[in-house]
Amino acid sequence: MKRVLVTGAGGFVGRHALAPLRARGYEVHAFGRRARADADGVHWHAVDLLDPIATADAVKRIAPAQLLHFAWYVEHGRFWTAPENYAWVEATLALARAFAAAGGRRLVAAGTCVEYDLRHGVCDEATTPLAPATAYGTCKDATRRLLERYCADADIGFAWGRIFHLYGPDEPPARLVASICRALLAGETAPCTHGRQLRDFLHAADAADAFVALLDGPVQGAVNIGSGEPLRIAELATALAALIGRPDGLQLGARPAPADDPAILVPATQRLRAEVGWQPARTLEAGLRDTIAWWRTRHGR
Amino acid sequence: MKRVLVTGAGGFVGRHALAPLRARGYEVHAFGRRARADADGVHWHAVDLLDPIATADAVKRIAPAQLLHFAWYVEHGRFWTAPENYAWVEATLALARAFAAAGGRRLVAAGTCVEYDLRHGVCDEATTPLAPATAYGTCKDATRRLLERYCADADIGFAWGRIFHLYGPDEPPARLVASICRALLAGETAPCTHGRQLRDFLHAADAADAFVALLDGPVQGAVNIGSGEPLRIAELATALAALIGRPDGLQLGARPAPADDPAILVPATQRLRAEVGWQPARTLEAGLRDTIAWWRTRHGR
Repeated sequence: MKRVLVTGAGGFVGRHALAPLRARGYEVHAFGRRARADADGVHWHAVDLLDPIATADAVKRIAPAQLLHFAWYVEHGRFWTAPENYAWVEATLALARAFAAAGGRRLVAAGTCVEYDLRHGVCDEATTPLAPATAYGTCKDATRRLLERYCADADIGFAWGRIFHLYGPDEPPARLVASICRALLAGETAPCTHGRQLRDFLHAADAADAFVALLDGPVQGAVNIGSGEPLRIAELATALAALIGRPDGLQLGARPAPADDPAILVPATQRLRAEVGWQPARTLEAGLRDTIAWWRTRHGR
Repeated sequence: MKRVLVTGAGGFVGRHALAPLRARGYEVHAFGRRARADADGVHWHAVDLLDPIATADAVKRIAPAQLLHFAWYVEHGRFWTAPENYAWVEATLALARAFAAAGGRRLVAAGTCVEYDLRHGVCDEATTPLAPATAYGTCKDATRRLLERYCADADIGFAWGRIFHLYGPDEPPARLVASICRALLAGETAPCTHGRQLRDFLHAADAADAFVALLDGPVQGAVNIGSGEPLRIAELATALAALIGRPDGLQLGARPAPADDPAILVPATQRLRAEVGWQPARTLEAGLRDTIAWWRTRHGR
């Protein structure tokens, strides 16, 4: 049976998971914070996941076979250390119990690169130590440990996608790609750090598509979600400024890099490529163009 | 301010923490599942920790500066794999939040030796890998990770006592010391495994006293709780049978040892001895005599 429940379905990543799930033949149920009319074959449910009773009721009613869990506390700037992270551990455990009680068969949830010990540069699922340094990383890591054991004991398939660096439409405005787009489109300069940091950037829609591939297959455990094509932040920023038509506006080196900013933070993507069989549909240029177009429609507001 | 809240205060270990806390000058508030009259200077509160609202209300009212958290799901035989473990992760996080909101300053909670990778024999807090193999161990391990970060961010002192092998009055009857006491006191034989396994046995009252010492000091992080005097199960069983006066009743080798039973599972106790400055008050003989006396009063019922 292919009846999937998507949480955080209105979010930065989750919104892009709905169409590929439909394309793979799933009956799609979406949890969002706000009520929405059903559209494009997606059944929307306004559910507050921090309310375990309402959540359990809704999950029971839907009885999904698959669960794709994106929802978390993600307020930019605050989410690294916010105590809300702990409430989301609780909410996720309650959701998993409700899913199991409703007969769920496979659960895939969103993790993060900051679960890893970031001194290791290239993060490999099997060999890189986990050593989260923040409340956010600690809560995601603990949630993975808990869900992995819970699902194993409940005979539910489980995978955990570790997200690295994303960009795309509707990104929090202070983040890298969003801030450059906004500044340059507004005719301002975009001050950046030196930009030598090596990262792996993925369009949010590609990330969502990777999660859908992970959900729709048999792979178990942690899987890094990345493009597999690391590049320097300066290369990304330069490409972005060029596409906007404002190469002059980019000011590399104008801002100090944070003291704890790792020189290299990229995912090993062998599991994603070889086991899940997924790679991004978009080139970097196509992804950036799409993002610029989105910001262009907001420009001046 | 020395106002401590003890959870699981009616439990196998927690009941023994109340007197030493009083002796150290604490105002003692005890959470138990059942209502009890205040006695011996202990204020009892009937609170269901699985009800976060009732818990938060009670914690706010008491406003404890210290929290000694023993309560967990411990039904013998079931607790290793029971889904209730996950609900206790949630309950513990909610309790910690309520404690922080009420102005709490130091939190000490009970962990377990099965958080460790049991292939290592001697479990050291700093060097032995953590690799819990059960839901119980996984939930305790995740809870420690979560509480440690939460308390660090909230500027609350935190320590985590990892319990090894306990015995004492009112132990679940199927456990080692309890089962031998019951069988031999009832005039039956006590079939055991070969007994060559090396363990560290501690009377529950000594364990509670160690937790009180940990709470009453500044030590942070995980601390093994043990006697520091490992012995073979056969040695323990032989001493017990001799003290009961039924050395003939013990049948070592009459039962197969579980396939996954570690040959050696003992704590490094340097942190407990040198940093916390604690060692057990009871000799093994005194602890066993106390336990035998307790079972004797139940014999025949």
